[in-house]
Amino acid sequence: MNEIKLFAPGTIANLSCGFDILGLCLDNVGDEMIIRKSNQKGIRITKIVGADLPFETEKNVAGVAALAMLETIETGFGFEIEIYKNIKAGSGIGSSAASSAGAVFGINELLGRPFTNKELVQFAMQGEKLASGSAHADNVAPALLGGFTLVRSYEPLDIIKIKSPDEMFATVIHPQIELRTSDARSILKQNISLKSAIVQWGNVGGLIAGLYTNDYELIGRSLHDEIVEPLRSILIPAFDLVKKSAIENGALGVGISGSGPSIFALSKGKETAEKVAKVMCEVYDGINLPYEIHVSKINDEGIKVLNSN
Amino acid sequence: MNEIKLFAPGTIANLSCGFDILGLCLDNVGDEMIIRKSNQKGIRITKIVGADLPFETEKNVAGVAALAMLETIETGFGFEIEIYKNIKAGSGIGSSAASSAGAVFGINELLGRPFTNKELVQFAMQGEKLASGSAHADNVAPALLGGFTLVRSYEPLDIIKIKSPDEMFATVIHPQIELRTSDARSILKQNISLKSAIVQWGNVGGLIAGLYTNDYELIGRSLHDEIVEPLRSILIPAFDLVKKSAIENGALGVGISGSGPSIFALSKGKETAEKVAKVMCEVYDGINLPYEIHVSKINDEGIKVLNSN
Repeated sequence: MNEIKLFAPGTIANLSCGFDILGLCLDNVGDEMIIRKSNQKGIRITKIVGADLPFETEKNVAGVAALAMLETIETGFGFEIEIYKNIKAGSGIGSSAASSAGAVFGINELLGRPFTNKELVQFAMQGEKLASGSAHADNVAPALLGGFTLVRSYEPLDIIKIKSPDEMFATVIHPQIELRTSDARSILKQNISLKSAIVQWGNVGGLIAGLYTNDYELIGRSLHDEIVEPLRSILIPAFDLVKKSAIENGALGVGISGSGPSIFALSKGKETAEKVAKVMCEVYDGINLPYEIHVSKINDEGIKVLNSN
Repeated sequence: MNEIKLFAPGTIANLSCGFDILGLCLDNVGDEMIIRKSNQKGIRITKIVGADLPFETEKNVAGVAALAMLETIETGFGFEIEIYKNIKAGSGIGSSAASSAGAVFGINELLGRPFTNKELVQFAMQGEKLASGSAHADNVAPALLGGFTLVRSYEPLDIIKIKSPDEMFATVIHPQIELRTSDARSILKQNISLKSAIVQWGNVGGLIAGLYTNDYELIGRSLHDEIVEPLRSILIPAFDLVKKSAIENGALGVGISGSGPSIFALSKGKETAEKVAKVMCEVYDGINLPYEIHVSKINDEGIKVLNSN
């Protein structure tokens, strides 16, 4: 195999109570990438369509992730990477993670899979470090593994994949505002009350239990965030109204996707997810705020190979 | 059915990372109770063996739990309760919970089960309120439901039962010191760092995932407590050494049972659990501290009916 074309999916991190530990993988929202072997050693970004991103390998998240991987394995050749972006940078649905994960996944395939997808997470995290300053895994893990993922620990890195309940759909609305990750970070408090923390870890437990037992109601009851959402939601236009409308129309739960500004809802079944999309759109239509809207099944597979030769 | 004799098991609450939300049920550590219908309405405690506890219904945890239950249902008769205590008060393995849960379970059986075991939790919690000042559920829930239990939320009360992995055993050592729950409470800090909280809820997620997938290693990796154990363990003699010895001898994880002073270990298989018991005992033998030791399979059933007529 000399060349591979793949779909690098968008992802939703945090998932309400699961701040910094949980994520899920989207199915029909994502980038495409082509990765091919090259006689020239090293990594070269040869094409970028749909976004204004750096071609210099060391400044491009896909390049950095790929370099981290190649540091650990001897190859007689190099790789060219083409990136066709659909996920907007700064949307909160894992744009940098898709590129980082896609790069290492593609190279791994071309090398005959020396690494498991779980092992690839550590390399993709280096792309995240370039993008946001922190080598977090809560987007790259679901991109690489699919379904829902839990980052139990970073030291050592310990990631658990949880299969998505079959009828789970996500709705994601991306209001077209700029929200810097650094602002979303700086609004957080460094200390929280033990009482709130207990509520939060009760909900984390409930969410994980709900996922393993396909208990959609339990998942819905657990999708609350005591800690982060009350602070960050202030930065997102009409968050409370979007959330209320979605819940009233059948969403199991609603929260901030990643560090925002996108808002996600989870629903049982496509019909409900589409109804939820409709009422979310109506809120932003009502205040003339442009947006993008996505309805997606949870993608239990993660990155998909579109073709190879 | 006019009379029922039952086994009311001891329980371990908190389970390291699961402070205030998780608990498990022991199999061969517990009290016995006899509950019988009486022509005299109301609740009477007619016999207490093995402990110096109040006979006045309103001052006895079993009495208070039973009264809370009878407030919600019309009966043409009353109940007598006999309590044969084996679980020491103040041991940290749910002595009051066993009595509270046993009382409402027994009466429910004699009434032909108008309530599910899950519904009984709210009544048993009233006994806990009498015992400790707070109507907590993390001991009564595993006593009534068996296995592992998650108290996701108190308002509304939302309890999830998780079946125990088949080979899971607990070792519990109870150093014979007095540790007041109020002291164990007051040593806690009201605020914690967000960073520690995230580590904690990552571990809660890992523990729940491990229980659903029978992944003993994952359960072991998740049995850490960032928040409470570092503070409370200071109150328990030789805690660090007991823990270290148990881990070195194969325990999956070790923590404080409830608010102490008992220390629990979880192990895969009876043989390991007994080896862990041996080394735990050696630590206290070495400092001439009296103790009780228990090795128990996790009891997936909860309270057991011994006989009835």
